Amino acid sequence: MRAVSFTKMQGLGNDFLVIDGPIDLDPEEVRSLCDRRFGVGGDGILAVTRADPIRMDYWNADGSRAEMCGNGLRCVAKYAYDRGWAPDRNFAIRTPVGERGVRVLEDGVEVEIGRPIVVGQTTIGDERYHLIDVGNPHAVVLVDDPSRVDVGSIGPRVEKDPQFPRGTNVEFATVNDGGVTMRVWERGVGETTACGTGMVAAAFLATKTHELEGVIPVHVPGGHGEVGLRDGVAWLRGPVEYSFRGSVGER
Amino acid sequence: MRAVSFTKMQGLGNDFLVIDGPIDLDPEEVRSLCDRRFGVGGDGILAVTRADPIRMDYWNADGSRAEMCGNGLRCVAKYAYDRGWAPDRNFAIRTPVGERGVRVLEDGVEVEIGRPIVVGQTTIGDERYHLIDVGNPHAVVLVDDPSRVDVGSIGPRVEKDPQFPRGTNVEFATVNDGGVTMRVWERGVGETTACGTGMVAAAFLATKTHELEGVIPVHVPGGHGEVGLRDGVAWLRGPVEYSFRGSVGER
Repeated sequence: MRAVSFTKMQGLGNDFLVIDGPIDLDPEEVRSLCDRRFGVGGDGILAVTRADPIRMDYWNADGSRAEMCGNGLRCVAKYAYDRGWAPDRNFAIRTPVGERGVRVLEDGVEVEIGRPIVVGQTTIGDERYHLIDVGNPHAVVLVDDPSRVDVGSIGPRVEKDPQFPRGTNVEFATVNDGGVTMRVWERGVGETTACGTGMVAAAFLATKTHELEGVIPVHVPGGHGEVGLRDGVAWLRGPVEYSFRGSVGER
Repeated sequence: MRAVSFTKMQGLGNDFLVIDGPIDLDPEEVRSLCDRRFGVGGDGILAVTRADPIRMDYWNADGSRAEMCGNGLRCVAKYAYDRGWAPDRNFAIRTPVGERGVRVLEDGVEVEIGRPIVVGQTTIGDERYHLIDVGNPHAVVLVDDPSRVDVGSIGPRVEKDPQFPRGTNVEFATVNDGGVTMRVWERGVGETTACGTGMVAAAFLATKTHELEGVIPVHVPGGHGEVGLRDGVAWLRGPVEYSFRGSVGER
């Protein structure tokens, strides 16, 4: 394997190898690096390219390219800001689905995710899934208690349902006065501690089904974030941390 | 967290942070470092101290100290040899359960694990477990097909059975002409891709139940190793690889 230096970061436990771009990675290389026992381990790889605006490229752990990754975008924002690549705390990052505004706060990072759209509903098994597009596809099901859902068996079934030829992310959410509590099955990854666009999808659904508004707390296994809407554009806010620095392929 | 530099290594997918000793780690620090999403991630931490003989200390991912770790010992042997700390390819490493001879080969590492002893048998649920001491405790059950065992639910039940006040490692093994094929539930860790002492325990059992002898191939989810006996002392041989180098707590 060629030598690669990286920074490992996580946002709500959603963890990434962050690499200076531009870099082209082939799927096998991505899978090797993201393997948690034989490689470095991570939900995916983020390449950050210093440009105007700063560019983010993203690969899932399975080697596939993804359109968007909300918590990944938050990591990229902090990484670029801390490296001195950004003009100030508010700047724009170019992603494969367009430019997104980001804001690096003292205690976290807030990013624009995009305009959520309710695409429709569908029934799989006995459950009603709300289909929400946040730049990438989500199927959100409202449940009594996400901690009691067998995410490991339902998630992959819904992800690969024939009606989703490109697959879908799947969220299991409950809504109450404290906001949204959820678990997520990420397309191409499996169950993760968090998924930024999934948090937006579930919170956006809650604005429709439960009339939540303003700043919506969203609780995921990896911690707590907040979601809101500004002129129809969803933003996601939460903590981002450095885990470690490293390099592969060197001795 | 204090700054720590480490080398990540794996033997048969059993993965470790390897740190230069002497170092004292508290359980919380070990748990943080071994967390696969919020930390570096690993089955445990190995501290290697340059001394005569070279010393190995080991912590499980849950922060507990462990008596022995066969694949960990194999990683330590390669690490010490590659750093030039060993006089030649054959040397001794001091572990918490005594000195062990190691041999660094061109394509892997062979280590002495110790004298396996059959301690007894016991029944848990409907299954008969062979209790084997390899410096640490093992409960080996012979099954038709390890790939079809629900290791995630049976493993922790056996590990924490009241008759094992210190807990036990659990192996699910099948024996045929090709050797031993097995999966393992490691005490304090969970299911892993391999466990050196567990491979010895299962192979040693096969010398009793199936009269296997000589060099016994042992297949685990993380790859293939070999186990043998020399004057009653078991040795374990297999591949060892560097995954990456890194550091935490630095910016």
